[in-house]
Amino acid sequence: MSQTIFLKNPAYIVGSFSVAGKREKQGPLGTTFNITEEDEYFGQNTHERAECEMFKMALEGAIGDSKISEDKIEVMLAGDLLNQITSSSFAARDFDIPFIGLYGACSTMALSLAVGSLLVSGGFVKNAVLASGSHFGTAERQYRMPLELGSTRPPTAQWTATGVGATVLSDGAVKGSPRITAVTFGKVVDWGEVDVNNMGSAMAPATADTITRHLRGTKTKPEDYDAIYTGDLGILGSKILRKLLKDEKINISKVHRDCGEMLYSEKQNRTQWQGASGCGCSAIVLNGYIMGKLQRGEYKKILFVATGALLSPVSSFQGNTIPGIAHAVVIEG
Amino acid sequence: MSQTIFLKNPAYIVGSFSVAGKREKQGPLGTTFNITEEDEYFGQNTHERAECEMFKMALEGAIGDSKISEDKIEVMLAGDLLNQITSSSFAARDFDIPFIGLYGACSTMALSLAVGSLLVSGGFVKNAVLASGSHFGTAERQYRMPLELGSTRPPTAQWTATGVGATVLSDGAVKGSPRITAVTFGKVVDWGEVDVNNMGSAMAPATADTITRHLRGTKTKPEDYDAIYTGDLGILGSKILRKLLKDEKINISKVHRDCGEMLYSEKQNRTQWQGASGCGCSAIVLNGYIMGKLQRGEYKKILFVATGALLSPVSSFQGNTIPGIAHAVVIEG
Repeated sequence: MSQTIFLKNPAYIVGSFSVAGKREKQGPLGTTFNITEEDEYFGQNTHERAECEMFKMALEGAIGDSKISEDKIEVMLAGDLLNQITSSSFAARDFDIPFIGLYGACSTMALSLAVGSLLVSGGFVKNAVLASGSHFGTAERQYRMPLELGSTRPPTAQWTATGVGATVLSDGAVKGSPRITAVTFGKVVDWGEVDVNNMGSAMAPATADTITRHLRGTKTKPEDYDAIYTGDLGILGSKILRKLLKDEKINISKVHRDCGEMLYSEKQNRTQWQGASGCGCSAIVLNGYIMGKLQRGEYKKILFVATGALLSPVSSFQGNTIPGIAHAVVIEG
Repeated sequence: MSQTIFLKNPAYIVGSFSVAGKREKQGPLGTTFNITEEDEYFGQNTHERAECEMFKMALEGAIGDSKISEDKIEVMLAGDLLNQITSSSFAARDFDIPFIGLYGACSTMALSLAVGSLLVSGGFVKNAVLASGSHFGTAERQYRMPLELGSTRPPTAQWTATGVGATVLSDGAVKGSPRITAVTFGKVVDWGEVDVNNMGSAMAPATADTITRHLRGTKTKPEDYDAIYTGDLGILGSKILRKLLKDEKINISKVHRDCGEMLYSEKQNRTQWQGASGCGCSAIVLNGYIMGKLQRGEYKKILFVATGALLSPVSSFQGNTIPGIAHAVVIEG
């Protein structure tokens, strides 16, 4: 069963904003972000507080960009990688807006767009603000090794992006607003990957499942989209995805781009190996680079498929495999 | 602003199921749960896997109770207290159903009812299954002290319930189905509590905010409800809530009941102090005791307000305060 949901009333993207770190600024998309900050602490005293600060900056930026006053925003949907999604929920304290906490690991930007657009499309709220993000320092500490150990990264590893992207959805368009017209929620798919340094491989099967179901459900072909963006499969994960889809007789190679592959330069990737990852990766690429192309009319229709690995350190220590998930939204320019 | 959302098309509760542990069985509501298990491991080798197993049992039970075949359930909404909500998402692997991961700490049952009922009401899905739960062993290890230390519990502490509750929502009623008719999403409210052993105090201000906004938005009085159930404020937190509402000239004392106060007997509370807490607390009381009363016609209309404390051990170690949140849904019998 396809389970793609079509939005009779589209949800319009009327505001977007991206906040990124120094390394992201140095990459090829560096100029597409609204704010880039040299200080990895963003003026705070811990990386966790820095992540929370980025959320506030991105949420305020997107609301400002939408020109909708904060008291007209009826709901906030956000999530991050930290335990108990504290950077999102702590940031939400500073806004007088009801809060829906989401967790989809690095798929959270697409998850928030999917749920948020349905709440807007259904007429339940007029305006919603969404955000998703991550910080290299907080993710490394939580999922892998303390940075101070200077552990060697294996070749399959990716680099958690430092950045937060935020979007404002509305039931009314402003001139040139891109709009969300269809949503396919992902299933939890687990092919048995156990390597916590190989997220691309863990997420690729779920991504293939969502893209396959989406294309079949919408009766579209890859070429019907100007681009199919995956979240943060990285170089290796992207190869696996294209191979898996080829087995289903679906060839996305002409239109496929992966935010994780794009965020850093080839030179940066010599240390980051497979590219970027993290909730922030697809969130800032969407709310920076991709949004620009949609607004300038360079894209008429794209499929945005953010991808997440649903592990925790405890689940891995206990010998469990790593399930993946991927949520897809169609954005039309 | 009230921000209560009214459901023109109600979402019907057509299935429910509750799985609980030994201590919950021994309490005054013990006979209202569908399954109670003496073995705290539920046949698994870790508490985390036990929690995941409870999720599977509750999800299967609720789907079975609804008599809707699994392939007609279009979305699953679930969450738990574990880092990266692994017990929900690992359980979701075993179901061929798209998955929306939610995080609202112990408010997650109400959060899933709220989001799920809007997806059904908006005509986006016909049937949705929701679940929320917790396990004493996993929560203690993650949030507080290893059980093996035998730490003394301070008098303000609560006891994390072992249990999972699940609900199936549908756009069509079966005879006698309770229905969700209004939703008020909670705001993140933080009055500066820092004591990780005083969750009731941390959650009470957010609960008062949600109840106040809900009553004003719906132009209803507490007496218009047969009961107003809060999630897991416990004895002390409930007192604080009633005091805070009294300051707003709202007197809920005649209709207020707290799932955390109800789950254990007074004798049990001598060791559990303020009563029960955890995602599972309000989830099993709703899908056990309360659902029975709705189905038997003993309740015509209730307000279910599950309450969550949005802390993490890292946030507390770094000296942050503990924000709270509470989501409310109106259920009519």
